[in-house]
Amino acid sequence: MQVTFLGTSGSMPTPMRGSSSVVVRLGRELLMFDCGEGTQRQMVKAHVGFQRHMKIFISHLHGDHVLGLPGLLQSMSLLRREKPLHIYGPIGLVQYVKAFSESLGAPGFPVVLYEIRESGVIFYSEKYQIIAVPAIHRVTAWSYCFIEADRPGRFYPEKAKELGVPKGELWGLLQDGESVMVEDRVIESSMVSGPTRHGRKIVYSGDTAPNPELVELSRGADLLIHESTFMDDLAERAQEDGHTTALQAAEIAKEADVKKLVLTHLSSRYPDPLVVLAEAKPVFDNVVVAEDFLELTLELE
Amino acid sequence: MQVTFLGTSGSMPTPMRGSSSVVVRLGRELLMFDCGEGTQRQMVKAHVGFQRHMKIFISHLHGDHVLGLPGLLQSMSLLRREKPLHIYGPIGLVQYVKAFSESLGAPGFPVVLYEIRESGVIFYSEKYQIIAVPAIHRVTAWSYCFIEADRPGRFYPEKAKELGVPKGELWGLLQDGESVMVEDRVIESSMVSGPTRHGRKIVYSGDTAPNPELVELSRGADLLIHESTFMDDLAERAQEDGHTTALQAAEIAKEADVKKLVLTHLSSRYPDPLVVLAEAKPVFDNVVVAEDFLELTLELE
Repeated sequence: MQVTFLGTSGSMPTPMRGSSSVVVRLGRELLMFDCGEGTQRQMVKAHVGFQRHMKIFISHLHGDHVLGLPGLLQSMSLLRREKPLHIYGPIGLVQYVKAFSESLGAPGFPVVLYEIRESGVIFYSEKYQIIAVPAIHRVTAWSYCFIEADRPGRFYPEKAKELGVPKGELWGLLQDGESVMVEDRVIESSMVSGPTRHGRKIVYSGDTAPNPELVELSRGADLLIHESTFMDDLAERAQEDGHTTALQAAEIAKEADVKKLVLTHLSSRYPDPLVVLAEAKPVFDNVVVAEDFLELTLELE
Repeated sequence: MQVTFLGTSGSMPTPMRGSSSVVVRLGRELLMFDCGEGTQRQMVKAHVGFQRHMKIFISHLHGDHVLGLPGLLQSMSLLRREKPLHIYGPIGLVQYVKAFSESLGAPGFPVVLYEIRESGVIFYSEKYQIIAVPAIHRVTAWSYCFIEADRPGRFYPEKAKELGVPKGELWGLLQDGESVMVEDRVIESSMVSGPTRHGRKIVYSGDTAPNPELVELSRGADLLIHESTFMDDLAERAQEDGHTTALQAAEIAKEADVKKLVLTHLSSRYPDPLVVLAEAKPVFDNVVVAEDFLELTLELE
C-alpha cells in the first residue's frame, strides 16, 4: 500500500507545493483525499493512472481542496474512462459538481456523488471501511479514516497435515479463519496459522482545529496525515481559522499513539520544512513534513 | 513589453506543460489570455504579481482554458486584492463565474465580466485596443488581437529651439503630435520629432481551425501566438476538432506577414518540440515552439 502526497500547500500553492491531495494506492484501487487545483497534473507526474477503480473523499468545499475535480473529470472523459468514479464529501458537493458540469460539460462516465450527513461509516466492504467524523473548520468539513479489515494469519499446511486435516475444503475454511471438525476434534484456525494480520489504518484530517474526536479515531493508526497550517506562535490565528499548529499535531499524534505522523497543508510563510519539523519532533519523534511526491509504503504486519 | 507563456499544453497538462495561459506585461498592467488549471501557481513561479491592474481574455469555455479562474480569484481574495478585475469571454462566462462563486464563495473584490456578442473592438483606450474575432472551434470561441496605439516619435528640444518655439506649453503639444503656430508659421510635430513609433501588435488565436479572418487580423503583427495542437499528418483530425497543425500555423504566419510566430497548445503526443518546429520552420523561419515560462520581450520600434 503506497501513500503519495500530490499536493501539500496551505491555501495558496507555492513553487514547491501544489494544492491539497493525497492518494492511497491499494492494489488496483485508488483512494484520493482532496483534489486541489493541479491534481491531475501531479497525478501525471507521479505516474498515477486515470483509469483505476477510484474513490475520492473531499474534506470540504474550499477551492484549494476541490478545484482539481473539474479538470480531473474532464481528462478522464478525454481518456474515455468508463468505470464509475465515486466521490464523497460534504453537503454542497452535488451542487458544485453540477455547477461546473453545466458550464463546461458533463463527464462522459458515471460519477456517483455522496453527500455525508452524519458521522460514522460512510463506506464498507470486506476489505476496508471509511469512517468520517466532523472536522472543526470555518465551513462544514470532514476528517476521514481508512481502516483495512484484519486478515487471518499465514496458513501453515504442514501443521494442518500433522493435526490430520485432509487437504481440500477444510483447508480453505481454516485459511479464512474458521474452525473445523476432524473426527470429534475441533481444529481452530489459530492452531494452523500465524497470528492475525492487523489491517492498516490511515487517518486524513483535512483542514481542522485540534479535534478530540479525531484523536479517538486516530488511536493506534499506522499513519496520521494531519494538517499543520501554522506554527505555534500563530496558535491563536490557527484556532480562529480552524487550523492546527505543528506542535498541536504532534501532541495529537502522541495522545492517539499513532505509529507515524505526516504534517501537510503548510502555509507558504514557512518555506523551510525543517523549521516546522523542529517544532513537532521533540513531542512526537516519528514525524515527517510532507513534500509534493513524498511516497510512503505501509507494509501489512 | 514582456510576453510570458504560463501554460502551453493541449487539452491535458503534461509533466512539462501546464494548461493554457499567456500574459502580456504592459507597464503596470497585466493582460492574460486564457487561464487554464494551475495558472495561479505558474504566475507565482514566473513572479507575476496578483495585485496588478489586470484584464483576462478567455478564448472559450473549455476546462483547459478556464479552470484556473476560480483558484486565481480565490487567491487574489486571500491576498486582499481591492482593484477590480476585468474578464472578457464568450457567452456563458457569467454563468460559469457565478456557478463556482456560488459553490465556493464570491471573490472579495470587484470582478467585471463582459460576454462578447459580436466581433470587433471589445476594449479601447488611448494606449491600446483589443479586437475579438470568432474562432473556428467546436464551441463558441474568440481569437484576440492587441493593438497598441502609435506613439509620436522622439521629441528633439534643440530643433524646437532652432525653430523659435518657446519652451513650455507648445513643446508639450508638439510632443503629443500636434502642430503649433509660432509668429504665423506652422510648426508640425514631425519637424521637431523623430518618426512615429508604431504600436505593437500581438495576436492570440485561442483554439481554432485555420481562419481567414484571423489571417487578416494578424497582418503585420509583431507576434502571432497560434495554437498548433497537431502536426500535419493529423490535419483531418485537426479540422474536425477545430484545431490547426504546425504547418498550417506557419502558412498563416507567412500569409499574414507577421514578424514572429509562437506555436502553443501542443498535444501531449508530441513530447519533442523540435519535431513540431521542423514542420513549421521551412515555411516560416522566425518561429518558436512555446514552452512553459518562455518569455519574449517586444521592443517599441
